[in-house]
Amino acid sequence: MPKEVPTGISKTNKSTAAKAPKDKPLLHSIKGGKAAPAKTPAGRNAPAKSALGKADAAAPDDAPVIGLNLEPAKLSPAMAAYFKKCQDKLGFVPNVLVAYAFDMAKLETFVAMYNDLMLGDSGLSKLEREMIAVAVSSQNRCYYCLTAHGAAVRQYSGNPLLGEHLVMNYRVARLNKRQRAMLDFAVKLTASPWTVEEGDRERLRRVGFSDRDIWDISAVAGFFNMSNRVASASDMRPNTVYHGQAR
Amino acid sequence: MPKEVPTGISKTNKSTAAKAPKDKPLLHSIKGGKAAPAKTPAGRNAPAKSALGKADAAAPDDAPVIGLNLEPAKLSPAMAAYFKKCQDKLGFVPNVLVAYAFDMAKLETFVAMYNDLMLGDSGLSKLEREMIAVAVSSQNRCYYCLTAHGAAVRQYSGNPLLGEHLVMNYRVARLNKRQRAMLDFAVKLTASPWTVEEGDRERLRRVGFSDRDIWDISAVAGFFNMSNRVASASDMRPNTVYHGQAR
Amino acid sequence: MPKEVPTGISKTNKSTAAKAPKDKPLLHSIKGGKAAPAKTPAGRNAPAKSALGKADAAAPDDAPVIGLNLEPAKLSPAMAAYFKKCQDKLGFVPNVLVAYAFDMAKLETFVAMYNDLMLGDSGLSKLEREMIAVAVSSQNRCYYCLTAHGAAVRQYSGNPLLGEHLVMNYRVARLNKRQRAMLDFAVKLTASPWTVEEGDRERLRRVGFSDRDIWDISAVAGFFNMSNRVASASDMRPNTVYHGQAR
Amino acid sequence: MPKEVPTGISKTNKSTAAKAPKDKPLLHSIKGGKAAPAKTPAGRNAPAKSALGKADAAAPDDAPVIGLNLEPAKLSPAMAAYFKKCQDKLGFVPNVLVAYAFDMAKLETFVAMYNDLMLGDSGLSKLEREMIAVAVSSQNRCYYCLTAHGAAVRQYSGNPLLGEHLVMNYRVARLNKRQRAMLDFAVKLTASPWTVEEGDRERLRRVGFSDRDIWDISAVAGFFNMSNRVASASDMRPNTVYHGQAR
Amino acid sequence: MPKEVPTGISKTNKSTAAKAPKDKPLLHSIKGGKAAPAKTPAGRNAPAKSALGKADAAAPDDAPVIGLNLEPAKLSPAMAAYFKKCQDKLGFVPNVLVAYAFDMAKLETFVAMYNDLMLGDSGLSKLEREMIAVAVSSQNRCYYCLTAHGAAVRQYSGNPLLGEHLVMNYRVARLNKRQRAMLDFAVKLTASPWTVEEGDRERLRRVGFSDRDIWDISAVAGFFNMSNRVASASDMRPNTVYHGQAR
Amino acid sequence: MPKEVPTGISKTNKSTAAKAPKDKPLLHSIKGGKAAPAKTPAGRNAPAKSALGKADAAAPDDAPVIGLNLEPAKLSPAMAAYFKKCQDKLGFVPNVLVAYAFDMAKLETFVAMYNDLMLGDSGLSKLEREMIAVAVSSQNRCYYCLTAHGAAVRQYSGNPLLGEHLVMNYRVARLNKRQRAMLDFAVKLTASPWTVEEGDRERLRRVGFSDRDIWDISAVAGFFNMSNRVASASDMRPNTVYHGQAR
Repeated sequence: MPKEVPTGISKTNKSTAAKAPKDKPLLHSIKGGKAAPAKTPAGRNAPAKSALGKADAAAPDDAPVIGLNLEPAKLSPAMAAYFKKCQDKLGFVPNVLVAYAFDMAKLETFVAMYNDLMLGDSGLSKLEREMIAVAVSSQNRCYYCLTAHGAAVRQYSGNPLLGEHLVMNYRVARLNKRQRAMLDFAVKLTASPWTVEEGDRERLRRVGFSDRDIWDISAVAGFFNMSNRVASASDMRPNTVYHGQAR
Repeated sequence: MPKEVPTGISKTNKSTAAKAPKDKPLLHSIKGGKAAPAKTPAGRNAPAKSALGKADAAAPDDAPVIGLNLEPAKLSPAMAAYFKKCQDKLGFVPNVLVAYAFDMAKLETFVAMYNDLMLGDSGLSKLEREMIAVAVSSQNRCYYCLTAHGAAVRQYSGNPLLGEHLVMNYRVARLNKRQRAMLDFAVKLTASPWTVEEGDRERLRRVGFSDRDIWDISAVAGFFNMSNRVASASDMRPNTVYHGQAR
Repeated sequence: MPKEVPTGISKTNKSTAAKAPKDKPLLHSIKGGKAAPAKTPAGRNAPAKSALGKADAAAPDDAPVIGLNLEPAKLSPAMAAYFKKCQDKLGFVPNVLVAYAFDMAKLETFVAMYNDLMLGDSGLSKLEREMIAVAVSSQNRCYYCLTAHGAAVRQYSGNPLLGEHLVMNYRVARLNKRQRAMLDFAVKLTASPWTVEEGDRERLRRVGFSDRDIWDISAVAGFFNMSNRVASASDMRPNTVYHGQAR
Repeated sequence: MPKEVPTGISKTNKSTAAKAPKDKPLLHSIKGGKAAPAKTPAGRNAPAKSALGKADAAAPDDAPVIGLNLEPAKLSPAMAAYFKKCQDKLGFVPNVLVAYAFDMAKLETFVAMYNDLMLGDSGLSKLEREMIAVAVSSQNRCYYCLTAHGAAVRQYSGNPLLGEHLVMNYRVARLNKRQRAMLDFAVKLTASPWTVEEGDRERLRRVGFSDRDIWDISAVAGFFNMSNRVASASDMRPNTVYHGQAR
Repeated sequence: MPKEVPTGISKTNKSTAAKAPKDKPLLHSIKGGKAAPAKTPAGRNAPAKSALGKADAAAPDDAPVIGLNLEPAKLSPAMAAYFKKCQDKLGFVPNVLVAYAFDMAKLETFVAMYNDLMLGDSGLSKLEREMIAVAVSSQNRCYYCLTAHGAAVRQYSGNPLLGEHLVMNYRVARLNKRQRAMLDFAVKLTASPWTVEEGDRERLRRVGFSDRDIWDISAVAGFFNMSNRVASASDMRPNTVYHGQAR
Repeated sequence: MPKEVPTGISKTNKSTAAKAPKDKPLLHSIKGGKAAPAKTPAGRNAPAKSALGKADAAAPDDAPVIGLNLEPAKLSPAMAAYFKKCQDKLGFVPNVLVAYAFDMAKLETFVAMYNDLMLGDSGLSKLEREMIAVAVSSQNRCYYCLTAHGAAVRQYSGNPLLGEHLVMNYRVARLNKRQRAMLDFAVKLTASPWTVEEGDRERLRRVGFSDRDIWDISAVAGFFNMSNRVASASDMRPNTVYHGQAR
């Protein structure tokens, strides 16, 4: 008889290793109008310092927020109010906002486009838009967006498994035909946009999507193809709080 | 001795076939607050009708503006003024704006982000930002963006060959080290964003780019990864006028 | 000021949707020597029935254990004892064992090879072997293995972030040189085994791996290239309990 | 209201930057039996010298003809007559001929095969053969062939848009079923020849191609898969005159 | 008239160059419980010494058995008997067994799994399992497995061409629908396991495979995805005798 | 102890299954100026008829010569003499010549280019040119060319292993630096010609290749990228005799 069970860890096993530090201080600093990087080791040198040591000890693996050394700007009144609203309603300011906060024009256009696409009127439900976000981000293997929007899918759907499925391989999710066609289109548009043609649009129409819906699917898929790249290019790190949400 | 020269066309050959129609009527209709699709055959049916016939006759190959049937909205005052400005300074309204004009919120956020990224302050010259646009669009084989931004590279650089090089294969362009590193980063970020790491950022720093410049390279590359997909997904067609510009 | 925060969900939001059913009944049935599929809808028809409905209601998204209709065999004494040991120490029998339980010879050779590779003597720590398992499974986008071995990485390391990093994109994990070289080798061996050459082995030797360690890295990477494919080909579903472990 | 229009260039803008030099001297030198490289900086060192400078000044970006230092041979009588014919009818000798002119046997076999395939009897029109040339060269991102044969498509079709479409992404061209099937076959044969099977030939037969036509499609596609590689491997540069033809 | 025939070698041509040495000594050493590497130059240094020289002289191109320096262990009684049986029935011990013989636990679990999968009860014939082995190994370009299992296909089928077809491109083999579907599934599972879904399983069922057969196809394909990687990672070399078998 | 040895075939095993028919009749028919297809079932219907039956019986797997129904033309005097010379010196006419024999102009230009490239003066030995042919054909998985030129590598080198290595994965061949660089260049030029740049040419120069040699490497690699595609597109089958040559 085999001597050990698959993971070799007993049911009562309780890791005593230090957990990764929470990003709370980060968020407090934002309330005062200063983004996190000011308090953490300077951007590009940090990674070397926080490398996982010989003992595999937990490390502040997701600080700083980005791997670029950008001085936070003074928040505009609109953005200061928005950050406060995030803090009040979510309990934290999403790191992507912290990352963009070095320049108010860039932060404001990003927020405006994001909110219109993800939260504005659409024939797609908010969950469906988040599902696209995660399927696209999985194709692009984007750590930031998979974490933040995987949490959103878990929250909106009340189905933690759906979030896992979309993060790992959307083809294992048990979707209805509408949502499967929607994600097939978004992922094809991500992987090889030059091959998308009228036949692909027709497939969406056949499962009930309007031409306006097709635009919205495309625009959300496009947006995350942008965000995935900004996040990967800048080594953007998600707020640690996302990982535990809605599991 | 071979009887025919490579292209088999004499120097004095002059095609008498009808040229593709110019998009002037399109732009007039926009000034009146109505986007072009209203005057052309309804979106998705058009392609079949304009198929290249047996005689290879030229056809209105780039109408309508997009392959989705979206009713143009009434232009907001800001957008009406902006379209007028385009008409006055460029002689036409770029079709991407016509395409977005079914919804003022989407049009305005797109314009705001575009203008900040491509025309706002940056350590990158406007030409360099257009070079990124074209190299990214070539990787994604995006007809709309290659056409519109290929023309912009020709215009800004005063070097028509540079535009051709970037459209076809940026590796044949004879670039200085700074610009070659910039495009290598943008194209890698486009093709496999998940493989971009600190080493890639370091390569940019070594040729003189600041961390803010790296953000801008990433943001422009990201933006065109979005736009390429919106254009491909909607079968967006460029204004014909671009093809002849600055050659 | 934008009206909504990024996820549009208040801090106090609490989903009332039904959660996915736990796999407890599954495990009880195993104790009696019958694998789960006997109690769930017959293999290949199940997916259609459990499709995510219009209301996006949670569904038993990870049942049955596999998408093949295989009659469970009577457990051999050794395997019955092993399943009991799993139940006692882990609280459940991993679904991969349930899946293989249609044939005792196959179950026993799988268990023997697994336990030798993952739990036997090696210059690689158990955590390192699990890290390889997850990095390989991420390359192959294998839902089963990412879930089960992602949990193992979280448990062994005591660092939940490390598990997330390896699931999503191992390149964002902050690893020491030894572990980074180990995963680079394993992922290259996964993606394009025909390109692995002496230079790749030399890179491992340079960070301190012995030739025996190189065998072990290769064997573990190879094993998960097998398991990922068996799991994907049979639509194998992980025990739901893994998702919440060690977060 | 946005302050700037998309390209930031006024309608009356006229670049004052120096244009890339025309290749006229090149062609004159050929008439004397000496290929261009003799007059330009020696092959492989040239690129560094002509790098695009800080001021983005236009440079002789497409000289020398190739990046290999090959001494031109004395033209055989047949080839001298052929070059003269090119000069008389086209106004220039295509650079690919200049490139091959270091060895008369190679030049003559290339010319013979080219002329048989592209200009000989076939069920495919000359335009169709040029369309295949461009679609294949686009898949292979070959600067030389896209330029020379893109011009040929514009000339033969009298439809400048068709040339642009095929250069950038043949899927946006509005082709009849016959020509679309022809290009789909040629591009598949280019990208993954090992996957071409009887089913692919059947698709061509169904739109009316004979078995002989299928050979010709394959032979033309094959020929440009050869030429694209010779051109890319030798850094072959097209005559600048092509860029402006038939626009 | 051309002066030379395609290969430029006369029918009576008989190479006088030294042939590659046979691996007989290797196998003798195994009978004594010592694997070959002990008698050949130490693992990783060997390749440099045996490089194909200026004169293109034949070299001991497939020694040593692997590129890792692993001390052979004393064969367990079961394995000693198994190696003797190989020697008696085959005339040699397959090098994969020699390679694994540094550790009896690993050798025994490998042999157990191999024999169950390839030689145990199954709805697939032994030839069909070998066909999967070769098609998978061709996708992964694995020299060891293509050689050993290519020989097995030639032997089992009595059709040397079938072996060549599967080694080079299984799509050229003239298979019945059942076997073609089987190899299509195995190769898709090898190239992109994450895309295998219920539709793929249904295609197998439609040509007559049972769910148990689907498991076996998957398990064999999975096994060679493991073995291909262990072989490539360790530079495993096949016994030379395979090359001449059953041609 | 395991009951069966790996291949489950005894040393004395002798297949009694019918061997695939030799193509001798094919060649006789050619001598009379008629290519094989006239005697075999008409091109495109043949495959269905010769499918490998339930009993895995050997079938005439490599007839007809091509999958296109092309009437053989009367051989020109030069080609008739050439075919006779092939027959006299090789004992057969290579099927590629039979395939091209439907059109004398095409056959003659093919033969002229082939003989110049593969048998004419060059800094590359004939073996080296055949090595390129095989490495390129392996990348393109071309059955015809791997078979015919794999045999040529075995013959020219007198090293059967070298032929096998290049067919299966050229990276396992133990080559000197010159030949390894040559094949790396040829394979890169095959897989992604658009990425070949001056740095790649420099790598060849550093191991001693002249610029003329670089042209020849490129031209041979290019030629087989053409031939591979013509062969795959037409389902060209090699003469069976190649398989047994020089093993």
